[in-house]
Amino acid sequence: MKHIFVIGVGLIGGSLALDLKRLNPEVTINGIDHKPAHLAEAISLKIIDKKAEFADLKNADLVILSIPVDASVNAIIQILDLISDNTLVVDVGSTKMDICKKVSEHPKRRNFLAMHPIAGTEFSGPKAAIHGLFKNKTNIICEVEKTAFKLQEKALKLFESIGMRIRYMNPESHDKHIAYVSHLSHISSFMLGKTVIEKERNERDIFDMAGSGFASTVRLAKSSPEMWTPIFKQNKDNVIETLEEYIINLTHFKDMMKQNDFEAIYNEMKNTNHIKDILKGIA
Amino acid sequence: MKHIFVIGVGLIGGSLALDLKRLNPEVTINGIDHKPAHLAEAISLKIIDKKAEFADLKNADLVILSIPVDASVNAIIQILDLISDNTLVVDVGSTKMDICKKVSEHPKRRNFLAMHPIAGTEFSGPKAAIHGLFKNKTNIICEVEKTAFKLQEKALKLFESIGMRIRYMNPESHDKHIAYVSHLSHISSFMLGKTVIEKERNERDIFDMAGSGFASTVRLAKSSPEMWTPIFKQNKDNVIETLEEYIINLTHFKDMMKQNDFEAIYNEMKNTNHIKDILKGIA
Repeated sequence: MKHIFVIGVGLIGGSLALDLKRLNPEVTINGIDHKPAHLAEAISLKIIDKKAEFADLKNADLVILSIPVDASVNAIIQILDLISDNTLVVDVGSTKMDICKKVSEHPKRRNFLAMHPIAGTEFSGPKAAIHGLFKNKTNIICEVEKTAFKLQEKALKLFESIGMRIRYMNPESHDKHIAYVSHLSHISSFMLGKTVIEKERNERDIFDMAGSGFASTVRLAKSSPEMWTPIFKQNKDNVIETLEEYIINLTHFKDMMKQNDFEAIYNEMKNTNHIKDILKGIA
Repeated sequence: MKHIFVIGVGLIGGSLALDLKRLNPEVTINGIDHKPAHLAEAISLKIIDKKAEFADLKNADLVILSIPVDASVNAIIQILDLISDNTLVVDVGSTKMDICKKVSEHPKRRNFLAMHPIAGTEFSGPKAAIHGLFKNKTNIICEVEKTAFKLQEKALKLFESIGMRIRYMNPESHDKHIAYVSHLSHISSFMLGKTVIEKERNERDIFDMAGSGFASTVRLAKSSPEMWTPIFKQNKDNVIETLEEYIINLTHFKDMMKQNDFEAIYNEMKNTNHIKDILKGIA
């Protein structure tokens, strides 16, 4: 492997570049990004070796597509058109149905592997890239059987080398379940932040009262709207379903409070406490 | 100061005992708890020096009341009846209106100081007690003017010595604002946990897909129902108000998604992003 191309040198693309370069110092990391400032930053942070253009993709051994999911769906055909027969193209977006559908009839479908590394922070851009982000994290791979066997093998080796556990799933199941454990958390956090900020307009003291519990629950409200808007758009139906269930549960909790049924509220919390066991092992 | 009594040797009472003993090695930390197992554990963990009874409170220089807020309201009169004229009694509960009302006419009202140290973790019991929990945290003191001047001074010194910033507030404002920055976070987290667990009954794979974002947002759902049920009960009206606003915001988000108004969704998130600046300085 000589040439890795990272399209989108932000948190995920940048962090992958850092890990892959450390393990494969002989490769050249080429960066493509529509923001020139990000490319300059990525070079100065030694995330990429040099900047490149789409036309250079013909030389790529590996292309990592790590841009917002709507941009990925727009770019993927052009990328597959440009690469050589032996290039592996992976996308790392948080939704998988739309991109898998988009590539399904492409003559180079077997050069493509759809994945979702479940890793990240609430930060974004090249500065957010860190070494070791993927260690002990899950990488969900979709439609593995549609990728050429040699390229499957190459991808597995690469992503296991940076410490990831591999899980296989179809795009429909991925998008349905990730709505619960990731997309809904982001909305609950954003709306919590909004509710408190609206209050704060009149009461500036309020944040002096906020502790680490609030900080933890609202952390995801720092996330990038550029990245998250297209995710919600692509996964609209699943996200609406999770939101409806969440709102029903919150309304039920509120109704129990109105009815002074604090025994039921106790039981509600007690039953949810077993999230402790479920979360064991998640950082 | 010779005798500190901690009533309720859990996360907060135990952590206060640890810090105060370290700074004042000459004092005896007396523990009172209705669970004998907690007292034995607190002794073996060196959180308290010995166990004690309510009848011993006459010897107390300082009493820290750190039990669930309904139990505090039930116990406070008996405690004030038992203490000597120079004893300082502080309560550390998460609601302040009910307890301040309860003590208002007591002849020893001036021996009492209502406070809320904004510190904690999602764990509970003596094992959860840790050194340094209160460093750089806010301690909200209510109705300071109703406490004897000498005891105010003593309390300030003690709580500043363990690293706390002191803020003054009336009990009504405290309970209203803490509903936003603490109580609502707990409910949003519990209900997020419930929504995902309900889904997981049929789909055991789902938690393999959960990352650190979900873990952070749902962390407070590990909290103790014994502690939180009475908090919600005492702060019922304020909590219901926050829940109603939160549900309105979530429903609005869902409606924008249904209407495909992703530009509005983008703006909604962008506007909430400034929570970053607000949270600076909170652990």
